[in-house]
Amino acid sequence: MSVQIRELLQLLAYLLRWVLITLPVGIAVGSACALFLWSLDQATQLRFAHPWLLAGLPLAGFAIGLLYQSFGQSVEAGNNLIVDEIHQPGGGVPLRMAPLILVSTVVTHLFGGSAGREGTAVQMGGSLASGMARLLPGLEPHDVRRLLMAGVAAGFGGVFGTPVAGAIFAMEVLSMGRMTYAAFFPCLVGAIASDQVCALWGVGHTHYRVASLLSADPARHVAPFDLRILLLTTLAGAAFGLTSLFFAELVHGLQALFRKFVRSALFRPVMGGLIVIAMTWAIGRRDYLGLGVTSPDPNAVTIVSCFQSGGATTWSWLWKSLFTAVTLSSGFKGGEVTPLFFIGAALGNTLAGLFGVPVDLFAALGFVAVFAGATNTPIACTVMAIELFGGEYTLYYATACLMAYLFSGHTGIYLSQRIGTPKV
Amino acid sequence: MSVQIRELLQLLAYLLRWVLITLPVGIAVGSACALFLWSLDQATQLRFAHPWLLAGLPLAGFAIGLLYQSFGQSVEAGNNLIVDEIHQPGGGVPLRMAPLILVSTVVTHLFGGSAGREGTAVQMGGSLASGMARLLPGLEPHDVRRLLMAGVAAGFGGVFGTPVAGAIFAMEVLSMGRMTYAAFFPCLVGAIASDQVCALWGVGHTHYRVASLLSADPARHVAPFDLRILLLTTLAGAAFGLTSLFFAELVHGLQALFRKFVRSALFRPVMGGLIVIAMTWAIGRRDYLGLGVTSPDPNAVTIVSCFQSGGATTWSWLWKSLFTAVTLSSGFKGGEVTPLFFIGAALGNTLAGLFGVPVDLFAALGFVAVFAGATNTPIACTVMAIELFGGEYTLYYATACLMAYLFSGHTGIYLSQRIGTPKV
Repeated sequence: MSVQIRELLQLLAYLLRWVLITLPVGIAVGSACALFLWSLDQATQLRFAHPWLLAGLPLAGFAIGLLYQSFGQSVEAGNNLIVDEIHQPGGGVPLRMAPLILVSTVVTHLFGGSAGREGTAVQMGGSLASGMARLLPGLEPHDVRRLLMAGVAAGFGGVFGTPVAGAIFAMEVLSMGRMTYAAFFPCLVGAIASDQVCALWGVGHTHYRVASLLSADPARHVAPFDLRILLLTTLAGAAFGLTSLFFAELVHGLQALFRKFVRSALFRPVMGGLIVIAMTWAIGRRDYLGLGVTSPDPNAVTIVSCFQSGGATTWSWLWKSLFTAVTLSSGFKGGEVTPLFFIGAALGNTLAGLFGVPVDLFAALGFVAVFAGATNTPIACTVMAIELFGGEYTLYYATACLMAYLFSGHTGIYLSQRIGTPKV
Repeated sequence: MSVQIRELLQLLAYLLRWVLITLPVGIAVGSACALFLWSLDQATQLRFAHPWLLAGLPLAGFAIGLLYQSFGQSVEAGNNLIVDEIHQPGGGVPLRMAPLILVSTVVTHLFGGSAGREGTAVQMGGSLASGMARLLPGLEPHDVRRLLMAGVAAGFGGVFGTPVAGAIFAMEVLSMGRMTYAAFFPCLVGAIASDQVCALWGVGHTHYRVASLLSADPARHVAPFDLRILLLTTLAGAAFGLTSLFFAELVHGLQALFRKFVRSALFRPVMGGLIVIAMTWAIGRRDYLGLGVTSPDPNAVTIVSCFQSGGATTWSWLWKSLFTAVTLSSGFKGGEVTPLFFIGAALGNTLAGLFGVPVDLFAALGFVAVFAGATNTPIACTVMAIELFGGEYTLYYATACLMAYLFSGHTGIYLSQRIGTPKV
C-alpha cells in the first residue's frame, strides 16, 4: 500500500507540475490564436472590401520571401521543424517563428493567397512552448517533448475551437498509425486553456449544422442506421483519402517544380502570386482565394455554402486544391487545413449530389476526412467532427476518416511524420 | 506512379479480404450478443418474478464450478486468455469458450449474482473469431491478431450498441497508454456488423438522457463551458480512477483469499453465493444483485436511477463494488463492466450531490470513467460516452476518462494487458 501512496503522491506532483507549466503556454497560445484569428478576419474583410488587393499578391510574396530570408531561415521548415523537435529534441524551436508566421500568414490572406490557419497555429504553439522550455532549464528531453506537444495541442485546439480533438491530434500526428499517451494530460490542459482564452478574447468560431436523418427523440443520441449511406460513406471516404494523397503530391510536386525553375526563393512566391491571379482571371471567380470560410457574395462557393445543396460546383474541390497548392508550394505562409476543409466539404457536396444522399452530412464527412487523410489522424478528426458538428453521426465520421486514412498512402502533408505502423 | 497503383491494388485486396473475413465473425458475434442479451433479460425478469431464486445462488455457483472443471479448464482464464492470444498467438481460443461463458453468465444472473456483460461478449467474440481463424489455415500470426481484435470489437460493440467505441476499445485495451491502428479496419467492420445484426434480431439497448446545461441553439454542438464544472469533473475523475483501482485490487485480493481458504474451485462460488445472500440480508435491499440496469421496484437503486437526483444512496457505489467483487472473485461468470457502470454512475450521483452539480452529467461521467480507469481505455470510453449520451459534453467526458486513467494505477481488471507507456 505504501508503494501505492508513493505512486499517488508522484502523480499529484506530476499533475501540479504540468498544470503550472502548461497553463501559461495555453494562455499565451490562446491569446496568440485570438490575435491571429482577429487579424485574419480583418485582413479578409479588407480584401473583400478592396478586391484590387489581389494585384499585390506577387509583391506580398516577395515581401514574405524577403522576411524569411532575412530573419526566418532557422524557422523555414515550419511544422516539420516542430514535429522533428518532438521526435528528437535538439536546438529547440526559435521564438521568432511565432511572429514571423503570424505576420506572413495574415499578409498571405490579405492579398488573396489560398491558405489556412492550422500550420500557423501549430507553429505559434510550438515556438511559444519551446520558449517556455528554455525558461525551465531543468527539463528532461521527454518533458520537452511533452511541452512541445502541449503547444501543438493548444494551437490546434485554440484555432479551431476543438480542444479534445487538439489534444488527440498532437498525440496522433507524430507517428502514422500509432498513438502514445505520455503527453495526454499536458496536451488536454494546453488545448482547453488555449480554447477558453481565445474565447475570452471574444473570438468565436463558425458554427455548422448537420441535421439530416436526425431523430426527433431527444434520448436517441445517434442518427438512425442507414446501410446505404454507410456504404456510400465508405466509398466517399476512399475518395477523400485519394484527394488527400493527390493534394499532398501536388504540393510536393509543385514545390519541386518551383525550386527547379525559380532559383531564388524570393521570386518563387512572386511567380506563385502571378499564377493565382491568372487562375482567378481564367475561371472568373474569386471563391478560391483566401480562407474560404465565408464570402460577402451570397453566390460564392465557401465552406459554409458546401453544406447546402448547390453550394459548390462539381470541380470546386479541384480548383481549391490548385489555388492552395500553388499558394503554399511557392512560399506563401499559412496552414493547409482550412483549405483541406474546403476541398473536402466541396467534394462531399459533389458526391452527395452524385449519390443522392444528404449534402450537409457528406460535406461534413469531407471536411474532416480529407484532413484526416492528409495528416493521418483519423481519431482526432472523428473527435473534431463531433466537436464541430455534434455526436449523432460518430459512426459515419469514424468510417470516413478511417477510409481516408487508409487511402491517403504512406505520406501526407507533414513530411517529418514517422511511420508507426504500416497501414496495410 | 506505378508504385502507387500497386499500393492501391494491395489496399483494395486488403479491404476486400478483411470484409470477407470479418463480416461472418461480426454476424456470428452479433447474433451471439443478441441471444445473450435476450437470455439475460429473460433471466433477470425471472429473478424479479421469483425472488427466492437468490437462495439457489450457492448451488448455481457449484454447477458453474463443475461445468468449468469438466469442460472449461482451457478457457478458465477468460478475457486474459484472449488478450494473451492477441499479444502472442499460440494455441488459439477454444470455441467452447463461447457457449460456456454464455450459459454460466446467464445462470449467474438468474440466481442474482452481481456481474456484467462485457467479459462475456468479449469472450464470445474472441472465441468465435479464433474459430474463424482455424477455418483459414493460411493466416499469418499478425492476421490472427487482427481477427481476434475484430472479435473483441464485435463483442463490445454488439453488447453495448457502441460500434466506434468497440473498435477503439479493441485497439486500446491491449497495451496501457499506447494504441496502434493495424487492425482498425477489421475492428470497425466487426463492430458495426455485430451491432447491426444484434439490432436486426430485435435486441435494443437502454437509452440515457443527459440534458443539463445544454444550449437550445441547434447549431451549438457542445455544452457551454463552465470552469467550475470542469474543475469538479477533474476532481471526480480522480475519484473515479481511485475507485477503479480499489475495485481491481478488491477483486484480485478476494480472489487470493478465496483461493487460500477454499481449496476446491467447486466450493469457492458456493461460498461466494452464501456471502452475497448474507450481504443482501444484512442491508435489506436487493438493488445490488444482477445486472442493475433496471428494476421493477421504482425505489430501487439502478443505473438508470443514478441519473436522477436521489437515485442512489451515498454508499451505493461501495455496495455494488462489494457484491460484484464477491460474485466474480469467487468464480461466478460475467463481465465487470456493467457493474463498473453502476459503481461509477452511483458515485457520480453521490459526488453531484456533494458538489452541487448536475446529477445526470456526473452519473454519465462516472458511468464511463470508472470503466476507463479499470481497463485503461480513456479514448474508447470517451467515444462510448458520446455514442451513449451524445456529443455535447465531449470535453467533460475526455477530462474525466483521462483523470480516471491516470489515477487507476498501473494495473486494471485485465491482468494480461501490457504497459505500453507509463502513465507518469
